[in-house]
Amino acid sequence: MNLNANETIEDLQLKGLQIIQNKKWFCFGMDAVLLSDFVEVKRNGQVVDLGTGTGIIPLLLWAKKSPAHIYGIEIQPEVADMALRSVSLNGLSDKIDILTMNLLDSPKKLGAHSMDVVTANPPYIENKGGLVNPEDKKALSRHEIACNLEDVVGTAAKLLKHQGRFYMVHRPHRLVDIISYMRAYKVEPKKMRMVYPKQGAAPNMVLIQGIKGGRPELKVEPPLIVYHPNNTYTDEIYRIYGMEKSNER
Amino acid sequence: MNLNANETIEDLQLKGLQIIQNKKWFCFGMDAVLLSDFVEVKRNGQVVDLGTGTGIIPLLLWAKKSPAHIYGIEIQPEVADMALRSVSLNGLSDKIDILTMNLLDSPKKLGAHSMDVVTANPPYIENKGGLVNPEDKKALSRHEIACNLEDVVGTAAKLLKHQGRFYMVHRPHRLVDIISYMRAYKVEPKKMRMVYPKQGAAPNMVLIQGIKGGRPELKVEPPLIVYHPNNTYTDEIYRIYGMEKSNER
Repeated sequence: MNLNANETIEDLQLKGLQIIQNKKWFCFGMDAVLLSDFVEVKRNGQVVDLGTGTGIIPLLLWAKKSPAHIYGIEIQPEVADMALRSVSLNGLSDKIDILTMNLLDSPKKLGAHSMDVVTANPPYIENKGGLVNPEDKKALSRHEIACNLEDVVGTAAKLLKHQGRFYMVHRPHRLVDIISYMRAYKVEPKKMRMVYPKQGAAPNMVLIQGIKGGRPELKVEPPLIVYHPNNTYTDEIYRIYGMEKSNER
Repeated sequence: MNLNANETIEDLQLKGLQIIQNKKWFCFGMDAVLLSDFVEVKRNGQVVDLGTGTGIIPLLLWAKKSPAHIYGIEIQPEVADMALRSVSLNGLSDKIDILTMNLLDSPKKLGAHSMDVVTANPPYIENKGGLVNPEDKKALSRHEIACNLEDVVGTAAKLLKHQGRFYMVHRPHRLVDIISYMRAYKVEPKKMRMVYPKQGAAPNMVLIQGIKGGRPELKVEPPLIVYHPNNTYTDEIYRIYGMEKSNER
């Protein structure tokens, strides 16, 4: 396979999967890996990942949960092209479709109330009118330029079947917005897990599940802690990454 | 001091404070103690505690933070009378007023937008029309019979000055309701702390601070863990209870 400038192929250490990354653009992080693990989907499930970027979530979801079909929606053509090449590189073109479009258009394309599961690892940073170059791919992945939190939740609500599930990873400081939009769009928050970098630290990520038309009652799960005090990963992180501890220690 | 039937005097182990409890009614728990520690209030602050019960929160707040004045609102006359006797027993009648009334009437009594801080440790259990005896004092303290969550948040919003602070302890499974009502009544959730009985367990309490007219951005604090794996209290619980560890171990 020919790679473009600044591209590398990374081994995901999971069922032989590989992913193309561009070191000048936004590279996937732990948030995508934790989200993929948090998702529950049946084998006959239809899934869409909003703002799929390099396609990391569709690839990990396929490897971990084997749903029937996964769509990845990405607005940036060059990034979508890279995700498409990663899907092809793994021989998964019949399982994963990468669609180059604004996520707001995805319900029209895929059909309203057609999806069992919607996932999103959206930009975290609110766009407060600061100067951000809209051509900057990293900025588009991090800042709410092409879409904001309400767009993501509202689109998920349109895509989901009744009782379908929405899974998102985001930042704890936006939790009030997250919960308010989810309830407003009738994607009731049902399960939440905070991710703490270390024991005793403030959380730096939140994993949340909403159910379309679900009844109110939130289950807050035990904390997910990333590092031991000695800076090695906790057992749960090893499990999520599918690594044997002995490989790393 | 003469005690009524089933009453005992408990030593709060804090500045010589004592509190009257009735073992047939609802006795204060760790939630009230954690809430009192979570509250921030200046020495010239006016505070009101909604649904004060035995008056535990006004007593602890006075001991820990010395605000200018604290009002405790309690709808049950016999319970309010017991709280009043506890205040008198501690010689704090000039610092703490116990008012026997429905909390919904408290803004008219105390003045709208008059308070710096509102606290609440409200009933946790939603009233879903089940059979609960309204004469049952324990039930009134635990179930949303006399007031519900929206009443508490809405009343706090009326009582608070602009930028005044609301502090509540509640159950994590109600978090979506809590956050939704707070935002709806413009008491923006600004700080949240989950209380976990043990490392690795799901949380069983949530402490939340809202600011009247505050701008959106939630700070999620490090977890508060109650017990070590060997069932002794953690150092933070010892600190909050004002106990020396050596007294207990």
